[in-house]
Parts: sequence; structure tokens; C-alpha cells
Amino acid sequence: MSRKHISKKNAALVADWQALQRIFLRPENEDARAMLLKYMEQILFGLHDFLKEHVGITEEASLKNLADKYKQTRISKHPEKKLAEVITDLVRDIAPHAVNVASPYFIGHMTSAIPFFMVHLKTIVAALNQNVVKLETSKVVSIVEKQVLAKIHRLIFHRSDSFYNTHVQNTRTTLGAFVEGGTAANLTALWVARNTLLGPKNSFQGIEKEGLMAAYQAYDIDRCVVLVSRRGHYSLRKAGGILGIGNDNVLAMDVDEHHRMDMRSLREQIRVFELNSRTKILAVVGIAGSTETGSIDPLREMGELCRDHGIHFHVDAAWGGPVLTSDKYRHLLDGIDSADSVTIDGHKQFYMTMGCGMIYFKDPRKMDAIEYHANYVNRPGSVDLGMKSLAGTREANSLMLDSALKIMGTQGYAILLEHGIELAKKFAAEISRRPLFQLVTPPKLNILTYRICPPHMQAELFSGTSTQRSHINKTLNAINRTVQRVQREAGRSFVSRTTLNRRSPDAEIVVLRTVLMNPMTDIQILNEILDEQEEIYRCRFGTNNLKGVA
Amino acid sequence: MSRKHISKKNAALVADWQALQRIFLRPENEDARAMLLKYMEQILFGLHDFLKEHVGITEEASLKNLADKYKQTRISKHPEKKLAEVITDLVRDIAPHAVNVASPYFIGHMTSAIPFFMVHLKTIVAALNQNVVKLETSKVVSIVEKQVLAKIHRLIFHRSDSFYNTHVQNTRTTLGAFVEGGTAANLTALWVARNTLLGPKNSFQGIEKEGLMAAYQAYDIDRCVVLVSRRGHYSLRKAGGILGIGNDNVLAMDVDEHHRMDMRSLREQIRVFELNSRTKILAVVGIAGSTETGSIDPLREMGELCRDHGIHFHVDAAWGGPVLTSDKYRHLLDGIDSADSVTIDGHKQFYMTMGCGMIYFKDPRKMDAIEYHANYVNRPGSVDLGMKSLAGTREANSLMLDSALKIMGTQGYAILLEHGIELAKKFAAEISRRPLFQLVTPPKLNILTYRICPPHMQAELFSGTSTQRSHINKTLNAINRTVQRVQREAGRSFVSRTTLNRRSPDAEIVVLRTVLMNPMTDIQILNEILDEQEEIYRCRFGTNNLKGVA
Repeated sequence: MSRKHISKKNAALVADWQALQRIFLRPENEDARAMLLKYMEQILFGLHDFLKEHVGITEEASLKNLADKYKQTRISKHPEKKLAEVITDLVRDIAPHAVNVASPYFIGHMTSAIPFFMVHLKTIVAALNQNVVKLETSKVVSIVEKQVLAKIHRLIFHRSDSFYNTHVQNTRTTLGAFVEGGTAANLTALWVARNTLLGPKNSFQGIEKEGLMAAYQAYDIDRCVVLVSRRGHYSLRKAGGILGIGNDNVLAMDVDEHHRMDMRSLREQIRVFELNSRTKILAVVGIAGSTETGSIDPLREMGELCRDHGIHFHVDAAWGGPVLTSDKYRHLLDGIDSADSVTIDGHKQFYMTMGCGMIYFKDPRKMDAIEYHANYVNRPGSVDLGMKSLAGTREANSLMLDSALKIMGTQGYAILLEHGIELAKKFAAEISRRPLFQLVTPPKLNILTYRICPPHMQAELFSGTSTQRSHINKTLNAINRTVQRVQREAGRSFVSRTTLNRRSPDAEIVVLRTVLMNPMTDIQILNEILDEQEEIYRCRFGTNNLKGVA
Repeated sequence: MSRKHISKKNAALVADWQALQRIFLRPENEDARAMLLKYMEQILFGLHDFLKEHVGITEEASLKNLADKYKQTRISKHPEKKLAEVITDLVRDIAPHAVNVASPYFIGHMTSAIPFFMVHLKTIVAALNQNVVKLETSKVVSIVEKQVLAKIHRLIFHRSDSFYNTHVQNTRTTLGAFVEGGTAANLTALWVARNTLLGPKNSFQGIEKEGLMAAYQAYDIDRCVVLVSRRGHYSLRKAGGILGIGNDNVLAMDVDEHHRMDMRSLREQIRVFELNSRTKILAVVGIAGSTETGSIDPLREMGELCRDHGIHFHVDAAWGGPVLTSDKYRHLLDGIDSADSVTIDGHKQFYMTMGCGMIYFKDPRKMDAIEYHANYVNRPGSVDLGMKSLAGTREANSLMLDSALKIMGTQGYAILLEHGIELAKKFAAEISRRPLFQLVTPPKLNILTYRICPPHMQAELFSGTSTQRSHINKTLNAINRTVQRVQREAGRSFVSRTTLNRRSPDAEIVVLRTVLMNPMTDIQILNEILDEQEEIYRCRFGTNNLKGVA
């Protein structure tokens, strides 16, 4: 009854012509302005106050119960709520059941706290509502985008002043593109590499136009492959599937003991494919900060190898790219400038809000291979950025990055990154010091994996037969799965888990994975998290309870 | 000197450890909160005040001069600016040279004013910073997303209560997905259709895994085609290129005199391909609101034809989809429920901010064809939305749409859409009334095209030979290009132009294109825009000046 009453009242407020016109005009009078600002205050601080009180992924309301509350599937004809009510609902009902990714105890994924000014910057992007697909809906914003692309390109490839002077505002060339995320960036890189490898030749007009079947016939091949280590992100397999080369042809190469590309295997594999004229190598992918372990491939060596063999070398630096801002750790990415293309995510270690990936190409003509035009936009020679881009309509996230770089300087980012890398070292030392744990992948950057592995089992792993070790690992996998889940559901902290596959008797091992990017996370907090895991382990698997596990 | 001084002062403010920690904490004291709110006030109202003073795409500062100001390509080591300065710069230097897409005189593209509450909603999405790729970084937000997907699915396909009850929160099935935009939506639809058509068969494991060459061999074909009218969006050609079928195999079918798919040609084409067993039809695409003319294909007929021939029927309703909220005009999209997949853009006629596309599938198992997993996320049976999705990391735009639907109701959207459709009819009448103009495509929705075509040339077009007509059209094309450009550069208003291609003596004609979606645009404003065009025409091409054009 009262609900109906509210609906009616609100209907009068919004769903008539005058009310609708009002919501398209920003208010002219002081009262209305004050109201809009009050809502913004609620958003900026109300959401945060709620988030403060819950950390990690609480399971107070089970997922099933939660889902049951969101099963209504009809859109109300009349307005149901006013903006104020919607905001209140979001603050009271949604935020407490969202995940507090900003908590320093949330160290399980590549999502973390962001500087508060990022929210202001995103609000600016939304309020301007420019569409960078074309100059006619963005103008100076497209120009700023070209500038910030050049800035990051320079950070990666540090080419000459005259190079950047020629290309920064050149409407015929392209140093890179803003895309939705790392997946779109990797897809774009392989798309460009595919079209370059199988471009027009004699009467064949290129793979983009005629398709893969015609391309394979024109080039007299029946297979293209992409070589990447088994630590490569799954988006590379997905890109292989989308592009028609088949995700089975994105080959997972062996890694060395540091989870880096095994160069001997890579050389051997290239040699084998070069003997087989029916297969072409589309690209070799190096990883600069693998998702699971943070490991970095030997980029310099890979780059030289690719150059010698004329293979497109792509570097997936979605995670590690921003380390280039640090004088102290830049050397970890040594050789990244030998790449033909590089992926970097803004929403990872540039601490931007979600949805800001980037792809860069050393050669500013490379993206010509994916150029599209339409009669009403994207005319050749214009500043229409949509000409060489996976997406059409796109928001102007470049404005956010440009502003953030001015506010932070490279040094600001460097301090954040150095904190994470150095904290990871301390954390690794602490894990090694505690008898219950085993450090599985020591950190190169700010990501490490470890597992619970009680001393007696560590001893057995060391001295046991292959069968015994396999059995123990299975037991350990079950233990680690349980501890991770119980900790997550307790809701005080969150560490993720993954399964590392290797060609070895320890074929599949479940590990706990931490990503240390929140500057509020410190060794004290990490100790608390380890304490909690020890506590959970003892409660669940104290020596007497161990039998039930395997 | 003073610049250096500022840099130093700011460096002290941001690029040290304490300062960095501060920017990750929302401020606890009242003064600091007030400051952040003051910035938000500047963003909400400052940007707008600036935009108010300039409409359209002013050319006061030429593009070249503007670009020259953004050629610096080094990132400063130390912070250059504080947030306050960055905001001031954006308000004073960027906004005035951005495009005022919110002006009611900006009627050239599918970008327009948005209700002010959308900016608040986007700010909420940014502040929560959830990543809907997986439950562990989004929780309830993924659940809300599934619900709003079901709501729009129901608006399109209106299946039964029990259907929606089964699928709305089902973690094994998928009613659709939020994507970056219409391009990603169309790509996803054709990707799913490709993988379904060329799925696993006997020992062949499917095109996604083994690639297109192996698929064509397994199915004994050498070509796949997509059939769409020549009014189809260029993203469909792009999708053909990316997916490996070749963009030449996205065939532009003839249109009838209303710019709708010519059903006779379509039937004939399908018949021809069915006789040729080496070619498969991957999909037929219907358009519900073409980008250039707003025309709507005969969806019901196309759907029946596709059903009879077992062809995937995709409808690109990026523009027209939201018309389904209007009782009065829903019938224009009659037959959309016979589609297998439907694209709708939130940032078009749901009036959201940039970057919110959607793709829907009638069959909730259809997206299984593009499923991907990884060890650390997207585990089978979870609510990890990234499992069946082009993108990985994604922002939670679904929260915005959910809130907007509550604030507006279907009726709120219906009123906006009806205004545009009815205004377009009045505008068409006015164009027809004025002797200087020729209405080229009468509006079905809220898009129409027309051109300047003085009475004596209209007469010649009517009675002339094919060669004469072709000559006149060339002259008219030049006139219309000039008038459009001069008006755009004057900066008071903006109408776009495009070139319509037809199989006829009027093969290529340049038209002025208007998109009427801003509720503040009225017939008075449209008359002013026509007046201005008449004025420009008379100044430039008064009878005496006409010779120099052709």
C-alpha cells in the first residue's frame, strides 16, 4: 500500500515531461545545487564509512540467500525510487555486500585501494561525457589522449625527441590505444601481428579482408602458432580462439625454476617450426609480471631471438609495466624496449578505476593493419581515434591517466611500487621463518605464492618417492583449499588461491597467492594474516584431524 | 623559476611516503572532507558553466594550434600539480575545447545530454571500484548484474515467469553480458554464432580450439558469410575481420526504398548459398535503428526466414533497443523477439555515460560456446561473470543501469524516446516545407537525413538523364559538404554528414544527418539550424557563386 503510494508520488516527480527536462539541466538555484552536492557527499563518504566496517569477502549472508533477493525481473513502468533513495540503497544494501577491495587485508587479487582523487577524475570523465571514437565528439580530449599515449610510449621505448615530435600529434600514425583492459590489449596486439604476418601479397588482399582460409592458402601454410610460457594470461588463449588461429595453437611453453620462459625450449621450438614450412609463428609473448606468480620473462633475450628470426615480440606487461617509473627496479623489465607491442593496464599499477587498458606499438604504422573507416566517422587523416581500435564508442579514460601522472609524477608511482616489492621480500622472509609454511614462488615483483606445508610433510616431500610425493601434494592441496576458503568466509582478510602446473612430480600444487599493492598493507597486517591461517589450520587439521583430508 | 618552485612544493606534498598514504585514505577531519566536496562542486557545476558558454564544435582555436600545445612527451618525475590545480585546468583549459555534446544544438551524433544523476551513479561505480570479472572482487554486484540482464532480456524476449525464475540467478546459464559497447556486442554475437556453427563434431574439437582452417576442413567448406544490409554498422565488418572469416564475407545486401533489408534479395541470396555446399551462412543480421538513417529492418520476416533455414539471427538494436520501453512505438521493433541475439547500447538511448554496451541471447546456454577458465578465477559453476565474456576486468556499469531503470521507470524512457520520434516527424515536415531542402530519409525513429537541393536542381534531377543527374549530385555533394563544415566551424550548432550509397544513378549522395535524442532540442532550435544552413548556402553559393563548386 505504502509502496504504491511512493511509486505514484515518484511518478509525478520523474515520468512526466517537465520532470524529465529538469533532470537534463543542472540546477540553477542554490537549494538544488546543495542537494546534488549532498548526494555526492553521501557517495564519497557514506560508501566509505560502510566499507570501513567490513573487510574481505564476508559470508554473513550466504551467496544463495543474497541471490534470492535479486530475482525480480520486471522493470517497473513508473519510477520506483528517487535518486536520493537509490543512493541510500546503494550505501546501505549494496556496499556492505560488495567486496572491500580497498582494505589492506584484501591482498588476493590485482584490485586494491585507489587514491581518492581517482574518483574525482572519473567523475570529470563522466560529466564531460566525451566519446573519443571521433574528433567531433571529443576534440581536445582526443589530442590529450594522443599526448598521454606518447608519454607512456616514451616510458617503454624511450625513442628520440624527434621521433616523438613527429608522432605525438600525427593524425596518420598511432603510438598505441586505450582499450577496455588487458584482454582487449592482448587481443589487439595479436590481431595486428596476424594481419601483418598474413598481409596483402600478389593478388591476395590480406587476411582481414579475405579471411584466414584464403590467407593460409595464399601463404601456403596450415597453421599459425603463438608461443608463450605456461604462466601466460588466459586472455592470450582467448585471443587465439577469437582470431581464428585456434586456442590450441597458443602453445604453453615450459618455464624454468623461476617460472620464467625456458629459453632453451623456446629456441628449440622456434627451430622446429622453422623446419616445418607449413607452420608460421605469429608471435612470441613475453610476460612482465605474470598473474599468478609475478615472474618476469627474460625480455632482452627473447627480444633478440625474435629480432633474429623476424617474429613479432609482444610483451604482456599489464601488471608490471608501471615498474618502469622506478629508477630502482626498472632494470627488472630490461629488454621491454625490444618488444614490437606492449600491454599495460591502467587499472592495475597505475591505480586507476576499472576499465583502462592500453596497448603500445613500437612502430607507429603498425596499427594501420587494423584500420577501418565509415562514411559518417573515422575519415582518413582525421584525429578520429576510432579508426584503428577494437572498440567504437569509448570513454576518455586517457584524461584520468594524464591527470594522475601530473598529480603523482613518476616518483609517486615509484614509491608505491617500491613499497610493494620490498614488502613482498619481507613477507617472503616471514613465510620462510614460520615452520608451518612453504614459500613456493619467491617474489620478483610484489606477488608471491606459498602454501601450508607442515614440517613433517616437508621432510617427506624431500625424501619420499615420486608416488609418495604425489600423495602428499594431494593432501596439501586439500588443506590449502580449505584454509583459504575458511579465511575468506570469516571475512577479516582475503588471500586468493591458484593451482600451479609444472612438468614434474609436483605436477599440480594448490598455492595461496598474495598481491601486495595496497600501500596501507604492512608486515604487521601480513603477520596477522599468517597467524589466522595457522589458527585455522590448527583448528581444522591439528594432527588428530588430519586423516579425513586426503 | 616559479614553475620549479611549485614543482618542489608539490613534490613535498605528494611524492613522499606519508603524502601517498594520505591519498589512499579518505580524510577523517571535517576540513579535508569539505575540500574534497568543494572539488566535486567544481566538477559538477564548474564544468557545466563552461560548457554552457560554448555550443557545438567551435573552431576558435584551430585544431592544429590546439595540437601544438600538447606535444610534450616526458612524464615529470616530481608531481607537477595538485588535484585542485588539475581540476581547475580541466575546467578552464580542457572543457572549453571539448565538445558540448549536451547542447540541444548538437544533433549530429548519437551522443547527447544525459540526466545529471548518471554522473552520480558513475561516481558510485568508481568509488566502489568492483571488478565484475569474478565474484571475489564484486560479490553482490555480480548478482545485481545478473538481475538487470534478466530485466532487459525480458523486455526483449518476454519469456515466461518460470524461465526467468530459473535463469535470473543461475550460475550455469547466461542471459547476456555487459560489454564495452556496440562493437564488442556485435563481435560477441558473431563469435558465439561462429563457434556454434562450427562446434565440435566427431574428432574435431571445435573452431575455438582448433582454429578456422581445421574447422573448414572438418565441415568441408571454404567460406562463411554474414548477411547484413548495406546500412549495417561497420563494426560488423570489423568483427568479420577479427574472427577470421574475412570482412569481405560480411556481405552488404541491397535495401529497399526505406533503407530496410530487401527481403527478395535476402531470400535469393540464402537460396544461392544453400545450393553451394562449400559456403555456410554464419548469421543474418537485422538492424533496429541504423546508424545513418535510423531505419529498421523487417525483423519479423527476417526472423521467420532464419528460423526456417536454421540460421543464427542477430539483431543490432544498439540504437533502437530502448524503444521497447514505449507502448506507443514498441511495434516498430516487432519481431525482435525472434532474434537469437540482440545488441543494445546503454550509452545511447538509455542515456548512460560512455562505455556501456550489452549483448543478449535468447537461449541461456548459447554463451557456453565462448567459455574460458583460469586457475585463479572463473571456476566452473561460480558466479564469475568473466567466464563467458570478451573482456576480463570490467567495471560495474550494470549498477548504473539498474539504478537508472528504478529512477526512470520504462515510462520515463518512453517519454524521452517518444519526444525524439515525434520531433523528427515535425522536423521532416519543416524540411519538406522549405524549398531549399530535400528530405532524403524520412524518420522511422528519431534519425533523419536531408540535403540542400535548390528547386532548380530538384527539377533537373527529376527530368535529367542519368549523366546529368550524376553531375548534379556531384555538385550537391560539394555544396552539402561545405555547408556542414562551415556550420560546424561556426560553433553554434552541429549536424553531421554521411554518404549514402545505393545501387542507382544517385549512387553516392552526401546528406546531412541529425539524431534527435536531447529532450531540450525542440522545433524552434531545429528551425534556427535550418535558417543558419540557408544563410550559409546563400553566402557561399548564391546563384552567382555556383560555378566554382563542381
